[in-house]
Amino acid sequence: MPGSPRDLLRTPPRVVNVGLELFADTLAALRVPVVHIAWRPPAGPRARALLARLDARREAVERANAVAFDRLTGGDPVLVDCRPAREALELPERTVLHAGPPIDWARMCEPMRAAVLCALRYEGWAANDDAAEGLVRSGGVRLAPCHDWRAVGPMTGIVTASMPVLVVENRAHGNRAHATINEGLGRVLRFGANDDSVIARLTWLATEAGPLLGAALRAARGIGLRTLMAQALRMGDEMHQRNVAASALLVRALMPHVARVGQRHNAVARLAEFVAGNDQFFLNVAMAAAKALADPAAGVPEATLVTAMARNGADFGIRVAATGDRWFTAPVEMPAGLYFPGFGAGDANPDLGDSAIVETVGLGGGAMAASPAVARFVGAGGLAEALAATEEIRDICHGEHPYFVIPTLDERGAPAGIDVRRVVETGVTPLINTGIAGRTAGTGQIGAGTARAPLACFEQALEALVG
Amino acid sequence: MPGSPRDLLRTPPRVVNVGLELFADTLAALRVPVVHIAWRPPAGPRARALLARLDARREAVERANAVAFDRLTGGDPVLVDCRPAREALELPERTVLHAGPPIDWARMCEPMRAAVLCALRYEGWAANDDAAEGLVRSGGVRLAPCHDWRAVGPMTGIVTASMPVLVVENRAHGNRAHATINEGLGRVLRFGANDDSVIARLTWLATEAGPLLGAALRAARGIGLRTLMAQALRMGDEMHQRNVAASALLVRALMPHVARVGQRHNAVARLAEFVAGNDQFFLNVAMAAAKALADPAAGVPEATLVTAMARNGADFGIRVAATGDRWFTAPVEMPAGLYFPGFGAGDANPDLGDSAIVETVGLGGGAMAASPAVARFVGAGGLAEALAATEEIRDICHGEHPYFVIPTLDERGAPAGIDVRRVVETGVTPLINTGIAGRTAGTGQIGAGTARAPLACFEQALEALVG
Repeated sequence: MPGSPRDLLRTPPRVVNVGLELFADTLAALRVPVVHIAWRPPAGPRARALLARLDARREAVERANAVAFDRLTGGDPVLVDCRPAREALELPERTVLHAGPPIDWARMCEPMRAAVLCALRYEGWAANDDAAEGLVRSGGVRLAPCHDWRAVGPMTGIVTASMPVLVVENRAHGNRAHATINEGLGRVLRFGANDDSVIARLTWLATEAGPLLGAALRAARGIGLRTLMAQALRMGDEMHQRNVAASALLVRALMPHVARVGQRHNAVARLAEFVAGNDQFFLNVAMAAAKALADPAAGVPEATLVTAMARNGADFGIRVAATGDRWFTAPVEMPAGLYFPGFGAGDANPDLGDSAIVETVGLGGGAMAASPAVARFVGAGGLAEALAATEEIRDICHGEHPYFVIPTLDERGAPAGIDVRRVVETGVTPLINTGIAGRTAGTGQIGAGTARAPLACFEQALEALVG
Repeated sequence: MPGSPRDLLRTPPRVVNVGLELFADTLAALRVPVVHIAWRPPAGPRARALLARLDARREAVERANAVAFDRLTGGDPVLVDCRPAREALELPERTVLHAGPPIDWARMCEPMRAAVLCALRYEGWAANDDAAEGLVRSGGVRLAPCHDWRAVGPMTGIVTASMPVLVVENRAHGNRAHATINEGLGRVLRFGANDDSVIARLTWLATEAGPLLGAALRAARGIGLRTLMAQALRMGDEMHQRNVAASALLVRALMPHVARVGQRHNAVARLAEFVAGNDQFFLNVAMAAAKALADPAAGVPEATLVTAMARNGADFGIRVAATGDRWFTAPVEMPAGLYFPGFGAGDANPDLGDSAIVETVGLGGGAMAASPAVARFVGAGGLAEALAATEEIRDICHGEHPYFVIPTLDERGAPAGIDVRRVVETGVTPLINTGIAGRTAGTGQIGAGTARAPLACFEQALEALVG
């Protein structure tokens, strides 16, 4: 009965609220999806002119974006191995990979510097921090982004040759991506902690846990991640701030193989205990999977979708499908969120880590609707706010993920395929769920919250896309 | 600003819709919580008179219910052991426990009969089904409800002496409850399957898996379930139809201990593989935990809260706090839901199993808001319907669970403490999420859906409560 009053009643309203928050709050309380848009400056004349020029090629761009979107969301990531970076990445000695776009020693934030020096000690390339810093300053160590080495690293993102890396193969496209094993919470290298306990854990990961995981994964002929990640999303993980479901599902799938290949019960028990105590164990797997999914979308001419987002604590960098591995960077923002007791916003390091690769493929901040508990944890409220966060990101995305569906949205796919054009047009920038590191060396994690990708990255990308 | 128009706007409406479904559908589409109440006959004159008589003792009843509610929701269930029923329950030979209130052989449904006979063969008490049936008919086997033996059993609920049972201790009250190990899906005793593969699995559970689980649990000094179950509820399990999160969390917590006590890698690997393939592994743990939680609420004089709900395929039985272990029974209803390919409503067995003990403590059907995916799976729609199901049960419950909170309700507790008075007053009966068994022996599971507790049980209980 098209056009009948019944139809009118049946159509759920989609509300965009600009300005006065009262109405947005009320509608949110009623669970009417609502996007509250704080006043944002409209795209300036330069951006409008660029968008208009790109609009002249609209059909070609849309076709290209459809191809990039299919690659970004249609992959088949399988966790196939765990082996030292020197084997998996052919990473040479005296090379240190870090998170984010390229950065030199002089501009690195304190936690990243501390982690670099700690890694040099762990590798035995320097006896102490002074010697390590001397080596770096004299050019005796090469610094490079993880992303340039088919890898991603959370927070400081440090990878060196002897560290075991998880290997994710995208079986739909044949490419691989890598990430270290998540170290757990507390004093860990990725947050810039650098004491003996950090090195002892790295040594155990390299000598016992990594080889056992690798043997189990090879015996299993890989663990498929697409279904597992889709399942975890239905269990409240957005796979950035919350990975408890994915971690438990992965452990459950892995343990039969670990037990079968384990030569010593104590090694099996130690590994089982380590993963049982680490709700974020899957984060690094999700990151490697996300990079494995995103990489095939790079190099599609005309496509305006984002293929990587990463932060080094100084710069936020994005890569775009049409422009391959070129970085568009701008100063990172400060994360905002909740702090552990004794810490506050003044103790926070600027936004850091390659983990925003999960937001690049439709997880994390944009999938907040799947994780009302995360919305609460990062200080963004409850279900209504979680739904609103996902609705907002939908406005800048090409489409909905075909596999990653959200139960609180009645099985609609997570928004995916961030379109540079829409970001510049709307002024809505991707929302990143993130851990917050202390700004001084050796502090570690001090909280969790959200950060925004800076608009300037997208404006630069738009310039390059117009060409 | 009490009384200001702003307050008025901020208050979300709670809508009860009676009759015409159009408005309920529309509101549900808008995500306004709405309970659509199909027309129900109001409580009859006899029931109204009984409620009035009970109302004269209102204060005493409310005080008693507060005590019962605290016991029902304040327990501390810990999974402490797994050992044969002959040890844990001191269950004698030639005794067969079954689900639901007491029932004799003549009235048992086909799947339950098939499971009883299969158990006799498994125990070696009879060589074949004919001999087994002869033994039962001649009185050579004692049949008794699980509930009378501090146990609960899913579907047919069969327990015999050599079967290992999981032991849950309620550390707040010192009582214990028990359930067999979940056999997985497919051809399983609990759904009335009875072939050699069923007996082979039972034998493996008794000789390898059970002893290994028991040793691991004893080495762990127990695995606390309250936090784990609260966590699983936040991960989309309502712990009746969906237990994937709780199962994975339990496996993750258990595996370090299994690995440590395991003498043979193959036994550890086989157990790990079995639990990795069974998303409902936790169901039986949840049931034992629920009984361990509910039992201390039994025997509180004047209290009108339900302490057990169970079905034997013929009768639905409830127990009430004030009347201890007395059963109030009425014919079970037919479950309604979705069927596996090739099956339909005509193939279904009437409602069956002790698993409704989870609904008794605030999980399952009443916690549907935590599990929009289950609402879909059992044919009840998506998020709006899941929220509505929980809202409906809230109307017949004493309060909200202090530990089992629901993220889609912004951390409100699941409704708990079903009050016999409110059920009779409103005509709203508890909603049970349930598997559906085939009605003929040997078929197994044919679907999943929901069933209602029959009102007559509550009317009988009300008569007894008035005394």
